[in-house]
Amino acid sequence: MSRKITAGLVGVTGYTGMELARLMAQHPVMELVRATSRSEAGKKLAEIYPFLNGITVGELEITLPDPADLATCCDVVFLAVPHKTAMEIADALLKEGVKVVDLSADFRLNDKDTYEQWYATGHTRPELLAEAVYGLPELYEEQIRDARLIANPGCYPTSCILGLAPALKNGFVAAEDIVIDSKSGTSGAGRGAKVGTLFCEVHDSFKAYGLPTHRHTPEIEQEVSKLAGTDITLSFSPHLLPIDRGILSTIYTKLTVDKDLDAIHAAYTEFYADKPHVRVLPKGRLPETRFVRGTIFCDIGLVADPRTNRLVIISAIDNLCRGASGQALANANLMCGLPLAAGLPAAPMMP
Amino acid sequence: MSRKITAGLVGVTGYTGMELARLMAQHPVMELVRATSRSEAGKKLAEIYPFLNGITVGELEITLPDPADLATCCDVVFLAVPHKTAMEIADALLKEGVKVVDLSADFRLNDKDTYEQWYATGHTRPELLAEAVYGLPELYEEQIRDARLIANPGCYPTSCILGLAPALKNGFVAAEDIVIDSKSGTSGAGRGAKVGTLFCEVHDSFKAYGLPTHRHTPEIEQEVSKLAGTDITLSFSPHLLPIDRGILSTIYTKLTVDKDLDAIHAAYTEFYADKPHVRVLPKGRLPETRFVRGTIFCDIGLVADPRTNRLVIISAIDNLCRGASGQALANANLMCGLPLAAGLPAAPMMP
Amino acid sequence: MSRKITAGLVGVTGYTGMELARLMAQHPVMELVRATSRSEAGKKLAEIYPFLNGITVGELEITLPDPADLATCCDVVFLAVPHKTAMEIADALLKEGVKVVDLSADFRLNDKDTYEQWYATGHTRPELLAEAVYGLPELYEEQIRDARLIANPGCYPTSCILGLAPALKNGFVAAEDIVIDSKSGTSGAGRGAKVGTLFCEVHDSFKAYGLPTHRHTPEIEQEVSKLAGTDITLSFSPHLLPIDRGILSTIYTKLTVDKDLDAIHAAYTEFYADKPHVRVLPKGRLPETRFVRGTIFCDIGLVADPRTNRLVIISAIDNLCRGASGQALANANLMCGLPLAAGLPAAPMMP
Amino acid sequence: MSRKITAGLVGVTGYTGMELARLMAQHPVMELVRATSRSEAGKKLAEIYPFLNGITVGELEITLPDPADLATCCDVVFLAVPHKTAMEIADALLKEGVKVVDLSADFRLNDKDTYEQWYATGHTRPELLAEAVYGLPELYEEQIRDARLIANPGCYPTSCILGLAPALKNGFVAAEDIVIDSKSGTSGAGRGAKVGTLFCEVHDSFKAYGLPTHRHTPEIEQEVSKLAGTDITLSFSPHLLPIDRGILSTIYTKLTVDKDLDAIHAAYTEFYADKPHVRVLPKGRLPETRFVRGTIFCDIGLVADPRTNRLVIISAIDNLCRGASGQALANANLMCGLPLAAGLPAAPMMP
Repeated sequence: MSRKITAGLVGVTGYTGMELARLMAQHPVMELVRATSRSEAGKKLAEIYPFLNGITVGELEITLPDPADLATCCDVVFLAVPHKTAMEIADALLKEGVKVVDLSADFRLNDKDTYEQWYATGHTRPELLAEAVYGLPELYEEQIRDARLIANPGCYPTSCILGLAPALKNGFVAAEDIVIDSKSGTSGAGRGAKVGTLFCEVHDSFKAYGLPTHRHTPEIEQEVSKLAGTDITLSFSPHLLPIDRGILSTIYTKLTVDKDLDAIHAAYTEFYADKPHVRVLPKGRLPETRFVRGTIFCDIGLVADPRTNRLVIISAIDNLCRGASGQALANANLMCGLPLAAGLPAAPMMP
Repeated sequence: MSRKITAGLVGVTGYTGMELARLMAQHPVMELVRATSRSEAGKKLAEIYPFLNGITVGELEITLPDPADLATCCDVVFLAVPHKTAMEIADALLKEGVKVVDLSADFRLNDKDTYEQWYATGHTRPELLAEAVYGLPELYEEQIRDARLIANPGCYPTSCILGLAPALKNGFVAAEDIVIDSKSGTSGAGRGAKVGTLFCEVHDSFKAYGLPTHRHTPEIEQEVSKLAGTDITLSFSPHLLPIDRGILSTIYTKLTVDKDLDAIHAAYTEFYADKPHVRVLPKGRLPETRFVRGTIFCDIGLVADPRTNRLVIISAIDNLCRGASGQALANANLMCGLPLAAGLPAAPMMP
Repeated sequence: MSRKITAGLVGVTGYTGMELARLMAQHPVMELVRATSRSEAGKKLAEIYPFLNGITVGELEITLPDPADLATCCDVVFLAVPHKTAMEIADALLKEGVKVVDLSADFRLNDKDTYEQWYATGHTRPELLAEAVYGLPELYEEQIRDARLIANPGCYPTSCILGLAPALKNGFVAAEDIVIDSKSGTSGAGRGAKVGTLFCEVHDSFKAYGLPTHRHTPEIEQEVSKLAGTDITLSFSPHLLPIDRGILSTIYTKLTVDKDLDAIHAAYTEFYADKPHVRVLPKGRLPETRFVRGTIFCDIGLVADPRTNRLVIISAIDNLCRGASGQALANANLMCGLPLAAGLPAAPMMP
Repeated sequence: MSRKITAGLVGVTGYTGMELARLMAQHPVMELVRATSRSEAGKKLAEIYPFLNGITVGELEITLPDPADLATCCDVVFLAVPHKTAMEIADALLKEGVKVVDLSADFRLNDKDTYEQWYATGHTRPELLAEAVYGLPELYEEQIRDARLIANPGCYPTSCILGLAPALKNGFVAAEDIVIDSKSGTSGAGRGAKVGTLFCEVHDSFKAYGLPTHRHTPEIEQEVSKLAGTDITLSFSPHLLPIDRGILSTIYTKLTVDKDLDAIHAAYTEFYADKPHVRVLPKGRLPETRFVRGTIFCDIGLVADPRTNRLVIISAIDNLCRGASGQALANANLMCGLPLAAGLPAAPMMP
């Protein structure tokens, strides 16, 4: 590809914006040409992110968000702004003919009412819901390639849906008895200044939060219901880990078929056979968040327990990379005719 | 009480031995008069534990383990040695007339066969199994007072049993559908030199381990079966947290009664009404491991989810204090006629 | 002592207020009878600090700060409020006849001009500067016993002054060539909601800050100058550690006398012979912050380097306990005729 | 460049071997074709490093170290084995005509006696000392391009030498009065199973170690003496940080010239003008280890203190990447005619 793909980023001050800037710094073909922020406009990216000093993308001057301006110079725009704000910018950009990857929740739920109920706010662009493609490449790669608007999946849902997909698609487990116990690194709590996420409040501690009404619940249910071909209501319990990055979801299911671990493992391997970024681990191995750090890998471990007839599925992702900006970039790559993983780190960072 | 109670500690090099030394340093009535270790004999405690410098207990010279010697000077002896080793020392000490609190697993399981199956070794002192009292004070305080031999509960079981007891005793939840997702700080993995628990292998990561055959499973099942009055088989999944201390167990149950959260919460509060070290949190509050750090508190939070008809019980303890040495000391206190909490820290350390 | 000593705490929402509440929870003689906060008045302490649930002190209702009210019921009042605010409350309380331990910087500097220059604000109660006693018990125990107003030392200065005192008092090192490289846990940065102290900004990182004008510099210089008997100007460089608690100061000095490590170590041991909370470590041992965690111990290690003729002094304290609230409590104990360490934890918490 | 450069790695089980594997996973031109280990031979790299699952380099089978075999297929070989072992393998490989980058200390010190004194062992290949090039690209790029044998610098020395070079080369600071206070992440302590580097021993603590005889001292002195043109003896004090990666060195010097910070900053900027991987930060900015994580950047901050006439230089690197394997790869790149930074991450990973 001879010409550069040009990208814009609306919202740079959060961890997802920060992560996207990191990834764009080494993209061979896509170039970040706009980064916007109401609070930081006028500064160079490297002024607010010293880690970008001396890197080309760090020289980019932050501008005020302006759809018309973004349209003049961007092939694709990433929205790393809060929900509700995102829907309006997305609409404006689409009208200008720009492809949009929205990292907020605004277009993830197909049903306007479900959105309005869980997010406690009106949806002002419901006409776009049908068009938005849920940006999970392993499930929707073809639609992503043709999409104008991507609803980039939530971090928890990414880990849960990828973990459950083969079991549900193959009808191995009961749809009515799913429990998901998820644990996320603290970057998932955002970069806002709050006492609750201060170092001394998080470090050397652990807690559950948001039970039983975390907003990722309906998103997970929507996608796994499609896979199962039946409406699923499940228990989803998020927890806060004293780590920077990473989500590990431990998913408890009841086996409904007489399959042993070998057969289940084979079905998982088959399901993800041509999906190199989902790694179904060898039997007996379990995922760890460090093994996917900084990448879009999703590692899946499988445990069958004959005592309880449960299949326990454990999936690990990097919540910032696979759970947000890395997956957003993969989606943008596909929308722009590039290989899915263009510009994404090939190997996790260890330790 | 005018005279000192004298105590011995067999096995000082692990984290449970270390924790017991810390607690004994400020006990008003009980005095540590023996500490034994095969590898460190001849040194003062403060030489291997510099934090005990300048504290009386730090001056204690470590000796070789010798039941006869321990019998001459100790009212009670704590065993902080690996399972299998413990059963033999316990027997020898009991024969010498010494009270024993065994922190290993050797006397926790009432059934010899269950022990031998899960621990993959023969039990050489089965005649003591019937006598040993399971040292969970909230459930067995009377028996503990009269006991010669305490099987000090495992760390995970302590958190799980206390969390489940009121629900099972009251028949609120289904016995056949219990999932426990537990997360423990790394001190629970012991103080042995292993690559897997090096700082750089644990820090900034998270994983499940030991699924589905962790040895605490039959211990939990034994005790919750007694509470429920029926045999319970459950799923228990431990995870490793990058924190020093703390266990948080998220327990998923199915409600079998038509009770709302108010009623369930009232039953929990009632169940633990005269048990000040179990704190049933106000509705809407969830436990955090930091809030119990360094103490024998067990904090319990309750979540009812009408969507799934599940009751989610979350319990938090300090794995080293409540989950091992602090509970051991509480048991010894009771065995020696002291108040349960004598010498134990009144308040958690925050942050 | 038959009657309780009563204490008040002005400012409960910061880490020093939190730590004082923890310590008061287990004080045998002193009782916290007032805790004030403008933002949290009306709540019980346990409502804002769930770790105090079920503990007597947690039941205390937070009130608005009112010197007259505090005077009616408190023998001694701790001020855990920002500088400038503290000086005014201190004055009001003293006028009411209450003893005051001020944890802010307002009365630490003997010289009004130095205060105004480094703190960039006017001092409105300079008449109290001469009366205020610098509350470092190892140096000023007698004066503390008789004081009405204690200027509780800063965290860094406590570690630095205790480390340097024997060397300077004995004239071992050059007054004009002192470099202090200090590292503090993040609780020292306060409990305000700021992006810079969010978990993800601090964890897995390390930095220096505030060079070369940190406000603890003149406080250190004032006290070490008194010890040396000559005006000292030194380099002080603080750093931020990704730990909750602890300060370690590495102090570089030039030897001016022909003394070997044995002689220097003997002089240190002698200097602190009757000061049990300063532990001069055996030669060859170096302090670690964990070994003093939760206590008022100050551990000092000594290294002589014949190659450079430098004496390197390393001192470790717990910045919240010895560096703030624990030392404040020790001072209040002395002011109220109690043993210095009454109510303070006897042993550090490890790990 | 059309053909692949082939590389071998002797010693894969430590953190430096692990880091080199990570970096090679995304090198566009250089390919890892051999990885050796006595203990792990026969396994694939991904079996011992699950983070390499699904990545080409992870498929590489570990072999026994065999110089002849390495010579048949490798253009360049990295030695990630302990000192003493390295010198012998290096010699054997050189005799086979292979270029060698030695990550051990064996060829860093030009003087055999100094090596033998500080490392307490004989040097069996002293004839190679004169030929070995000290692999700090900012100082020795030309010699590195032509070298057969690279002595890859130590982690601490890299941070210290880069920090001091402009000041010493320009004669700004006194050669006889340099104090270096360095702090390293725990990966620098190696991947051996030792109690001292267990998670619970390191996490939430901080200490100095190895004073005053850390083996990196003579290496630093050797290189800064060359820069200053005079023999330098300095104080070097390493500390252990509870982070995975990163070294921050705080370097205290005495100014000997009448230069203000502007002039000094300009000289630093000039010195590193064409060295893009050393980032001299804007005045008023200080380095943080997170800002260089995973890269070969070295960030330098400058503080002038008129009160003490000291220049404080603070430098930050990633100890595993710039301090070991990344710098080794940069050296190999240069030796093989590639751009210095080929295959190295362009941007740090944040958070």
